[in-house]
Amino acid sequence: MSVLQNGNTVQNGATTLVDVQSSRDNRHIAIDKVGIKGIRHPIKISDKTGEVQSTVAELTMAVFLPQQFKGTHMSRFVEILEARHKNLDVPTFKELLPEMLSRLESKAGEIQMRFTYFVTKKAPVSGVESYMDYDVTFVGKSENGETDLQIKVVVPVTSLCPCSKEISAYGAHNQRSHITITARLSKIAKDENTLWIEDLIHIAEKSASSELYGLLKRPDEKFVTEHAYNNPKFVEDIVRDVAHKLNEDTRVAHYIVEAENFESIHNHSAYALIEKNKI
Amino acid sequence: MSVLQNGNTVQNGATTLVDVQSSRDNRHIAIDKVGIKGIRHPIKISDKTGEVQSTVAELTMAVFLPQQFKGTHMSRFVEILEARHKNLDVPTFKELLPEMLSRLESKAGEIQMRFTYFVTKKAPVSGVESYMDYDVTFVGKSENGETDLQIKVVVPVTSLCPCSKEISAYGAHNQRSHITITARLSKIAKDENTLWIEDLIHIAEKSASSELYGLLKRPDEKFVTEHAYNNPKFVEDIVRDVAHKLNEDTRVAHYIVEAENFESIHNHSAYALIEKNKI
Amino acid sequence: MSVLQNGNTVQNGATTLVDVQSSRDNRHIAIDKVGIKGIRHPIKISDKTGEVQSTVAELTMAVFLPQQFKGTHMSRFVEILEARHKNLDVPTFKELLPEMLSRLESKAGEIQMRFTYFVTKKAPVSGVESYMDYDVTFVGKSENGETDLQIKVVVPVTSLCPCSKEISAYGAHNQRSHITITARLSKIAKDENTLWIEDLIHIAEKSASSELYGLLKRPDEKFVTEHAYNNPKFVEDIVRDVAHKLNEDTRVAHYIVEAENFESIHNHSAYALIEKNKI
Amino acid sequence: MSVLQNGNTVQNGATTLVDVQSSRDNRHIAIDKVGIKGIRHPIKISDKTGEVQSTVAELTMAVFLPQQFKGTHMSRFVEILEARHKNLDVPTFKELLPEMLSRLESKAGEIQMRFTYFVTKKAPVSGVESYMDYDVTFVGKSENGETDLQIKVVVPVTSLCPCSKEISAYGAHNQRSHITITARLSKIAKDENTLWIEDLIHIAEKSASSELYGLLKRPDEKFVTEHAYNNPKFVEDIVRDVAHKLNEDTRVAHYIVEAENFESIHNHSAYALIEKNKI
Repeated sequence: MSVLQNGNTVQNGATTLVDVQSSRDNRHIAIDKVGIKGIRHPIKISDKTGEVQSTVAELTMAVFLPQQFKGTHMSRFVEILEARHKNLDVPTFKELLPEMLSRLESKAGEIQMRFTYFVTKKAPVSGVESYMDYDVTFVGKSENGETDLQIKVVVPVTSLCPCSKEISAYGAHNQRSHITITARLSKIAKDENTLWIEDLIHIAEKSASSELYGLLKRPDEKFVTEHAYNNPKFVEDIVRDVAHKLNEDTRVAHYIVEAENFESIHNHSAYALIEKNKI
Repeated sequence: MSVLQNGNTVQNGATTLVDVQSSRDNRHIAIDKVGIKGIRHPIKISDKTGEVQSTVAELTMAVFLPQQFKGTHMSRFVEILEARHKNLDVPTFKELLPEMLSRLESKAGEIQMRFTYFVTKKAPVSGVESYMDYDVTFVGKSENGETDLQIKVVVPVTSLCPCSKEISAYGAHNQRSHITITARLSKIAKDENTLWIEDLIHIAEKSASSELYGLLKRPDEKFVTEHAYNNPKFVEDIVRDVAHKLNEDTRVAHYIVEAENFESIHNHSAYALIEKNKI
Repeated sequence: MSVLQNGNTVQNGATTLVDVQSSRDNRHIAIDKVGIKGIRHPIKISDKTGEVQSTVAELTMAVFLPQQFKGTHMSRFVEILEARHKNLDVPTFKELLPEMLSRLESKAGEIQMRFTYFVTKKAPVSGVESYMDYDVTFVGKSENGETDLQIKVVVPVTSLCPCSKEISAYGAHNQRSHITITARLSKIAKDENTLWIEDLIHIAEKSASSELYGLLKRPDEKFVTEHAYNNPKFVEDIVRDVAHKLNEDTRVAHYIVEAENFESIHNHSAYALIEKNKI
Repeated sequence: MSVLQNGNTVQNGATTLVDVQSSRDNRHIAIDKVGIKGIRHPIKISDKTGEVQSTVAELTMAVFLPQQFKGTHMSRFVEILEARHKNLDVPTFKELLPEMLSRLESKAGEIQMRFTYFVTKKAPVSGVESYMDYDVTFVGKSENGETDLQIKVVVPVTSLCPCSKEISAYGAHNQRSHITITARLSKIAKDENTLWIEDLIHIAEKSASSELYGLLKRPDEKFVTEHAYNNPKFVEDIVRDVAHKLNEDTRVAHYIVEAENFESIHNHSAYALIEKNKI
């Protein structure tokens, strides 16, 4: 039995190739999201300093499919990516959404774009510069003309255990931790492009026992060791301190903050999460 | 400044070690989830045939923490796991939740338990038996005495492209795909333990172009090749066919079904998702 | 053109299915290893205490293929696994190799079997028991009747930085580290089965700043914090201390020891490796 | 006991911070490799068309450490990376090695640099252009003035099973596969920079049932489906066909070629490997 039910066709030189995707579907079930996942593409991102950085993104692009259509046209998602040669930042990322909905003839859709992002930092004492790398994801959703934008950053930091410090005669266990902030932009932040990746990184790093650096000389290492010891933090402290700052920030409409400590005394993590819808 | 604000202490032989976690917190921010993540533990799971299979789980266990407490007691989560020597299946997994809430003195909490699960299958022609492996996650949530249970299964299958078959003179591209079903149990399924992992696997496998096997002899390979060719499916078809079956199934209160085809002609996936709250 | 060149066939009821793999190959290129990879299977491992633990393995099984044959018979590898119902430990793992070579009619082959392994530990002060989990790989190679056995263990530990301790007024950065030992058994260790997974774990843990535990009560946490502070170790110290012990151990014929510190002050690792062929 | 044994120091303003790494070690064990692992850095790579592409690399950098030194100076590896602002391709990558050995005062060392690499391809019928992405690793080793260079590429392709095609009345199972070539450059290829990433990709893609594309229109999909059906390949065929081409290629001194088929009818892979030292 042929999968084809309405005989749409396309010309291919002398041949005629049927458009199976456009044929009618009779199961009466709409599909919330359909598209492509795990496609890698080189992108350019404008950062807060005005510089443009080149990096590699992995994307998911999907649209709503009404019940009457058998399939979406997967190649069009790739065409949209290929056609996009200008820089990407929050404002230009926003333009991808209506373009995708128009090209795929759908009323709703979503794009996720995950990439490695670099920030140049100065070491705290010597001032030597080096890159720090972060995993960042832009998530854009559009439905019935409404656009929703989220920025997610995974910020690696140091956490030093308050309990271990308090009960031990000397030392305190500490470890690398990941602070993950997923922030939905408020209307003003979306319209005026006022929330930067760097802003969320800053909030996370100031809520940890210490921030991390690519390059530290000995005086810097002394500084970060003592600074972390002076700022012990449980996962609970970290998420609360981030939450407190995001509560005050009018650029953020909704957030999830997570902290995961890759405990240096266990083979599992300590973990905490706070979610808040501010509107 | 000491992190300690109320001087809770515990006896340790002659020494007294303060209980930092129980000290008072003044930020007025409750924490939605706090606990441990990524801990591995050997478990036993009763399967639908009545057999008990031994496997390895990775767990996340977390509770709600009211605003007035500085921290939770992480070691108690591990104690609960260590104390648990009997078999785990849906009914016994349900008992872990109230045990955790009581031990951590919290009103709400969540346990996720991911493990490899094996089903013995007969090859379609030769009948030779072999294991198929699946990733399964149990998710249990409890809040104010209400318990919510979800079973998530990732089912690897074959998908064969209807478009490729239709337009090509011979052959059709096909590939391994993952069908993921996340099903929340209805009240009756929870109370009477009527939904098995095997039931969800069966629904997924019957919605694919072909199911997979650990061991196939030549007559079996001929069978699955031809069977897949006779059952071409887009990701859209797969999620719709699964959704149709879950819509009819009174044991399922809510579901998300996803299909991801690791396209053999691209280096990215085709992807589709349907979510439905049936109640 | 048919891939078939010599018409080997097999009976399948009334049908005759050709054996493509057994057909002649004319490229004159032998294949060093051909087989199956990434297959998961439940296994039972006897541990040093005499207990049998059930776990899940991921296996690679491969054999040498002479130049004149087009292909190997992949399903036979799975049959060997399925037929194996008894416990696996070093002695029984050794038996798998000749069985595979005989079944696949090859003169040389290799089996890798990676699994999660649990050891019950007592916390250093309270004595409470809990599991620690390790990634272990058995590698067996056989060629011309000679069998070679390797045990690889990844042991998570704490490392505390000697430089950070020395230069800082208080505290010292520390972190989770992985010590990986890959040990080839000497003739005596192979013949008399005298080298246990636990022995390699013990060597690694005694070479770290501190070992890890699943469960620690407050007095234990004080102990491990102070113990790590009293035993600062660079990656260089760790691999040297392990190497020193393995040099003395007559059960080990060759080893690679690696240490990777997931630095708590950087977003990259410190890494060291020593390899030694003792014979 | 202090870790310090010879009192090397460095000035830090008014303070004097000891150089623990330079202190004497008395275990008499040299370290084969010590350095940093898993550091991410933005890089620029010149491709065969003369274009420069910006991408993100993950690097491992390590040197030999003689027995008399306690530790290496980890921060110097990062300084070398940070100082490097020009483009990287095989010729400039070669320069990193002597620079690292000089800066770390070592006689031997190794750099591994893994990155995503993009090639623009034309679809086979429509000619539409799109990116294909590949994982590439440069490995450079230097010892006693001799430099060794390797290029490793992971090339995703389609494989179609000859056995399945032969025994089935219609169709044939096919799937995504990875062909991995690790090629050590011959003297002439090193001196004259004549081996490009694109050359190895080309060899791999021509040895598969079909190459992959980011973007295919319907006539292209018909073409690749039929082309793969006309070119059935076992993993054994793929590695032999690649080996045959590399045997003829004077730019390659040594190679390992691997093929892994993510079988569409099983949940495990078929795998083959050939290694050859041509000199």
